Amino acid sequence: MDIGVIGVGRMGTAMARNLIKAGHGVYLFDPVPDGPRELGKEGGHVVASARDAFRGDVCISMLSNDDAMRAVFIDGGLPPQGAKTIHMNMATASVAMAQELAAHHKARGVPYVAACVWGRPDAAAAAKLSVVVAGEKTAIDKVEPLFKVLAQRHTRVGDDPVMANVAKIAGNLMVASAIEAMGEAAALVRAYGLNSADFLTMVNTALFDVPVYRGYGDAIGHSKYEPPGFDLALGFKDVRLALAASEKKNVPLPFANVLRDAFLDAIAHGDSKKDWAAIATVAARRAGLD
Amino acid sequence: MDIGVIGVGRMGTAMARNLIKAGHGVYLFDPVPDGPRELGKEGGHVVASARDAFRGDVCISMLSNDDAMRAVFIDGGLPPQGAKTIHMNMATASVAMAQELAAHHKARGVPYVAACVWGRPDAAAAAKLSVVVAGEKTAIDKVEPLFKVLAQRHTRVGDDPVMANVAKIAGNLMVASAIEAMGEAAALVRAYGLNSADFLTMVNTALFDVPVYRGYGDAIGHSKYEPPGFDLALGFKDVRLALAASEKKNVPLPFANVLRDAFLDAIAHGDSKKDWAAIATVAARRAGLD
Amino acid sequence: MDIGVIGVGRMGTAMARNLIKAGHGVYLFDPVPDGPRELGKEGGHVVASARDAFRGDVCISMLSNDDAMRAVFIDGGLPPQGAKTIHMNMATASVAMAQELAAHHKARGVPYVAACVWGRPDAAAAAKLSVVVAGEKTAIDKVEPLFKVLAQRHTRVGDDPVMANVAKIAGNLMVASAIEAMGEAAALVRAYGLNSADFLTMVNTALFDVPVYRGYGDAIGHSKYEPPGFDLALGFKDVRLALAASEKKNVPLPFANVLRDAFLDAIAHGDSKKDWAAIATVAARRAGLD
Amino acid sequence: MDIGVIGVGRMGTAMARNLIKAGHGVYLFDPVPDGPRELGKEGGHVVASARDAFRGDVCISMLSNDDAMRAVFIDGGLPPQGAKTIHMNMATASVAMAQELAAHHKARGVPYVAACVWGRPDAAAAAKLSVVVAGEKTAIDKVEPLFKVLAQRHTRVGDDPVMANVAKIAGNLMVASAIEAMGEAAALVRAYGLNSADFLTMVNTALFDVPVYRGYGDAIGHSKYEPPGFDLALGFKDVRLALAASEKKNVPLPFANVLRDAFLDAIAHGDSKKDWAAIATVAARRAGLD
Repeated sequence: MDIGVIGVGRMGTAMARNLIKAGHGVYLFDPVPDGPRELGKEGGHVVASARDAFRGDVCISMLSNDDAMRAVFIDGGLPPQGAKTIHMNMATASVAMAQELAAHHKARGVPYVAACVWGRPDAAAAAKLSVVVAGEKTAIDKVEPLFKVLAQRHTRVGDDPVMANVAKIAGNLMVASAIEAMGEAAALVRAYGLNSADFLTMVNTALFDVPVYRGYGDAIGHSKYEPPGFDLALGFKDVRLALAASEKKNVPLPFANVLRDAFLDAIAHGDSKKDWAAIATVAARRAGLD
Repeated sequence: MDIGVIGVGRMGTAMARNLIKAGHGVYLFDPVPDGPRELGKEGGHVVASARDAFRGDVCISMLSNDDAMRAVFIDGGLPPQGAKTIHMNMATASVAMAQELAAHHKARGVPYVAACVWGRPDAAAAAKLSVVVAGEKTAIDKVEPLFKVLAQRHTRVGDDPVMANVAKIAGNLMVASAIEAMGEAAALVRAYGLNSADFLTMVNTALFDVPVYRGYGDAIGHSKYEPPGFDLALGFKDVRLALAASEKKNVPLPFANVLRDAFLDAIAHGDSKKDWAAIATVAARRAGLD
Repeated sequence: MDIGVIGVGRMGTAMARNLIKAGHGVYLFDPVPDGPRELGKEGGHVVASARDAFRGDVCISMLSNDDAMRAVFIDGGLPPQGAKTIHMNMATASVAMAQELAAHHKARGVPYVAACVWGRPDAAAAAKLSVVVAGEKTAIDKVEPLFKVLAQRHTRVGDDPVMANVAKIAGNLMVASAIEAMGEAAALVRAYGLNSADFLTMVNTALFDVPVYRGYGDAIGHSKYEPPGFDLALGFKDVRLALAASEKKNVPLPFANVLRDAFLDAIAHGDSKKDWAAIATVAARRAGLD
Repeated sequence: MDIGVIGVGRMGTAMARNLIKAGHGVYLFDPVPDGPRELGKEGGHVVASARDAFRGDVCISMLSNDDAMRAVFIDGGLPPQGAKTIHMNMATASVAMAQELAAHHKARGVPYVAACVWGRPDAAAAAKLSVVVAGEKTAIDKVEPLFKVLAQRHTRVGDDPVMANVAKIAGNLMVASAIEAMGEAAALVRAYGLNSADFLTMVNTALFDVPVYRGYGDAIGHSKYEPPGFDLALGFKDVRLALAASEKKNVPLPFANVLRDAFLDAIAHGDSKKDWAAIATVAARRAGLD
C-alpha cells in the first residue's frame, strides 16, 4: 500500500520503519522538519506537507497531543475534502477531540478510523503493540493488514471511532493505577525496613509477572526514573484525559483523583521530565522517606 | 517430617493434603472439631488439641484472623514453653499481632517463622502458592524443604518474622488496587456504551495477562461475584491490615483509603458475602450505572 | 455615576436595583432580552447592546460563566478600543479566562477591575455582599464608592485582576468543603440512629454559627434541596474552577477531588438542578442510608 | 452538690475550678498524683483514689483517652457495684469504648451519663463549653444544673449514652475538615502569590466568622503552630475515632480519609507535637511551597 505518516516522533518512527521494511510505500511528514530525515535514508519518502501524506491508500497520524491534532487537522483543513485516503489516527486524543475529529471527517466525507495503541517505542519497534480500533467496518477491513505489521494483536470496539479513545484512556488509567499501587506498597514496606526492590520483584514474580509491573517495579525499586520511557508530564496528560472523559458522563473516579494529586505533587517537586513511575517518589515523600 | 497443622479450613486442608501426599506425618487440629475429619481418612492424624500439634518437627498454623491466633497462642498458652517444634505461621496476621506473636515465641524460647502465602485454595491444591518467609535463619533452613511441597516459589525477607506479614499485607494492597482500577475503568467505558467484559479482556490480554487480572476482570466484566473466591468482608479485613500497618509507621496510603470506602460502601449495600471483586459494583453505582 | 450593567440575572438584578436606588444612572443589558425589563420600570435604562453599556463611568458585568464572558468580550470585541469606562467584572471566571480578560483589556487600553462577590441573591438585595477586588489602584479608587452601595465589606488583593478570581475560587472551595463535611458527619450520625437535623443544629450552634453552615445545615438536616439557592451543576462548575486553577500551579487538592466525585455522583443520580447542598445525599447513599 | 472529679488535666482543672467557685464540694483525683494539687489550695478536696471520687452525688470523669478510661473503670473495677453516684463521663471515648462503658455501668447498676464537650481549656475556664449529653433521663435531670456552671449550652440526644460520643466524634470531623479546607485553599492562593493570611482573614470575615475558623485561620495564615492549643497527635486520634465509628456502621467518609493521610504525613515530618492546624503544612508541602 501507499501509506502516509503524519507525526514521526519516537513512536511514529518505529512504526513507519516497520511499514517500510514490510515493503509499503511510506510518505512521511512531521511538523518538526527534521523528524523524518533518518527514515528518508531507509527507504521512506519525506513529503513537504501534511496534505501530501493524504495521497495514498491510508494516512496514519501519530501526533503527540490534542493541540497538535487541532493544528494539523481542524485548523489545518485536512484531510482534503472528499479524499479517498483512509485516515487512521493512532494517537491518544481526548474524548472531546476524538468526537470533534470524528465529526470533522464525516463533514469532509473522509473515512476515519481511530486505532489507539498500548506499548512503548521498543514494543512498536518489535511490532508488539496492542491496538484498539474503532470506525466504519469497511475502512477497518482495508487497514487491517497493517496491524499485522505493527502489532501483536488488535481488537475492534465498534463503528464509533471515539470508542477506541475511550478504551485507550481507560486502559491507561489502569496502568497508572498499577504504578501508584506499587509506589504505596513500596513506601509501606520501606517504612518497616524492607528493601522495596526485593519486595516488588517478589510480588511481581508471584502475582504480576507482566512487563507493565516488571518494568515500573524495577524503576520504583531502584529509584531509576531517568532517562524516561514515558514522561511524567505526559502521564499526567493521560490522567487528565481520564478525568475529562469521566466528567462528560458523570463517572466518579477516586483512583484517578489520587493520581491527579500524585502527578501534581511530582511536578511541583521538579519531576515532570522523569519517567512517570516517579510518582512513587510522592508516596515515599508523604511518609517522610525521601 | 512430623508436622502439626493448626487450622484446617479451605487453605489449610489443601496444604495439609499435599504434605500427606508427600509422605509426611501430619497431625491435624482445628478449633472447629469437624474441620480435619476428611483428611483423617486420607492418611492424616486428627489430634485432640492444638497442644498436640506441637509434638513434631514443625507446626504449621493457618488460622483465619488475629482473634483466632490470639485465642490459640497468646491466650491458649501455646506453644509449650521451650518446645523444640518450629512454629511456622502461614496465616496473614496484622502487624501488631505479628509483633506480639514474635515476642511471645521469643519469651517461650520456641523457634518461630512467619511464612505468608499468596494464592487461593486452588493454587494451594496445585502447590502453586508463593511464599514470603521471615524468621531465624536456622529455623527457615529446616522448614525450607516443605516449601517445595506447598509452593512454586518462596522468598526470604530477613530474620524478623514480622517482615513476612508486612510484605504480605503490602502485596494484598496491590491486588485490591488492581480490582478497584478495573472497576473504575469498567465503569468509565460502560458509561460510553462499551461492553466492559470485552474491554477488560482486551486490556488484560494486552497488558495484564496474569491470573489476578484475568480472574477478577472476568468477574467484573460479567458481574459474577458468587460464589465468592475470597469474601468481600475478608478483603476489607486485608485493607484494614494495610491501613493499620501504615498508621504504625506514618505512611499515607490514598489508594488504601479509596479501597476502605469502596468496601464499606459494598458492605453497606449487602455485598459482604460476595467475592471481593464486587467492589466494582460501587464504582458503577457511583456513576448511576446499576 | 453613570453605570452600565451587563448581565441582569438574579444577582445582577439585585445589585443593579441597589445602584438605581442609590441614585446612579444605570444602563442595563442582558444577552437574554427580557432580563432587564423589570428594572426598566424602576428607573433603570435598558440599552440595546453590550456596547451601549460602556458609555458611562463604570461598566459592571455579571455574566454566568466563561462562555458568556467570551461571547460578549473576547469574541464580541468589547470593551471598545481605548474606552475610558472602567470595566468592573464581578462574575466568577476561571483563572484562565481571568488571565485572558486581563490581557484583552490591556491590549485595548481599557481599565479593568475584577471584583468577585460572596453572597446569594438575597445578600445582594440586602447589600450584604462581600467583595474581593483586584486591579489597577487608580481604577479601584474610582469604583470604590459603589462597594458601599452593593456590599458590606470589600478587600483589595493587589493590582493583578486575576487574584480576585483566585481568591474567589479558593473561598468557594471552602464553602463546598463545609457542605461535604456536614454531609459526611450527618451520614455518620444517621447510621447510629441520631437525627441529623438535630445534630447539625447543635454543632452549628456550638461551633459554626454563620449563615453558610446554618443554611446548608438546615437543608441537609431536612433533606430540603428544592428550590435551589445555588444549582448543584453550578457548584460543580466552581469545583472545576478550583481544580483547573490548581493544575496551573501544581497544587494537589484532595478535598477538591472528593468534591469532584461527590458532584459527579449527584449529577449521575439526577440531582444537577437541586441545591448544591444535595451532595450530602451522596454521602448518605454511599452508606446505604437512602 | 458533692462532686467527684477524675482526671484533672487542663480541661478537668478548668471545669473543676468553676464547680468550686459555684460552691460545690469538689473531690479531685488524677492518675498523675500532682494533677489536682493546685485546686487543693483553691477549696477543692484532693482524694487518694478514684474510688473516693464516687462518694458524692455526681462523679465527673475527664480522662484523656480510651486507655486511661479502661484502666480506671473497666480494669479498675469502678464505679463501685450499686453506687448511687451518677457517673458523668465528659471525655471523648471511641464508640467501642462508649458502648463498653455503657454496658459496664449497667451491669454494676450505676447511673451513667455521657456528656461530651466542645471547647478548649480557655472556653472551659470561661464556662463557654458546648455539651452534648445522653443517658437515662432522670440521671440527666439531676446533673443538668451543673451544665449552667460549666457550659453556655447543652443538648440532649437521647437515652443511649453512646450517642453523645457519636455526636462529638462527628462534630470533630467537621472541625478537622474546616482546617484541611483552609489548608488547601491557602496553598492554592499562595501558589498564585497571594498572601494566605490576608486571604483567610478576608474569607473568614466574609463567610466563617466563628472562633474555629478565626483561630485556625490565623494559625495557618501565619504558620504559627506552637505552642499547640490541641496537639496534632490528639487530632489524629479524633480522626481515627471517626474512622473507627464509620467502620462499625459501614459509612464511607472520604474527607476523613484525606484527613488520615494529612495527619500521617504531618506526623511523619515531625509535627505531632504542634497544633493540629499544622496539617496545613502538608497541603503546602504537596505543592512544593514549603
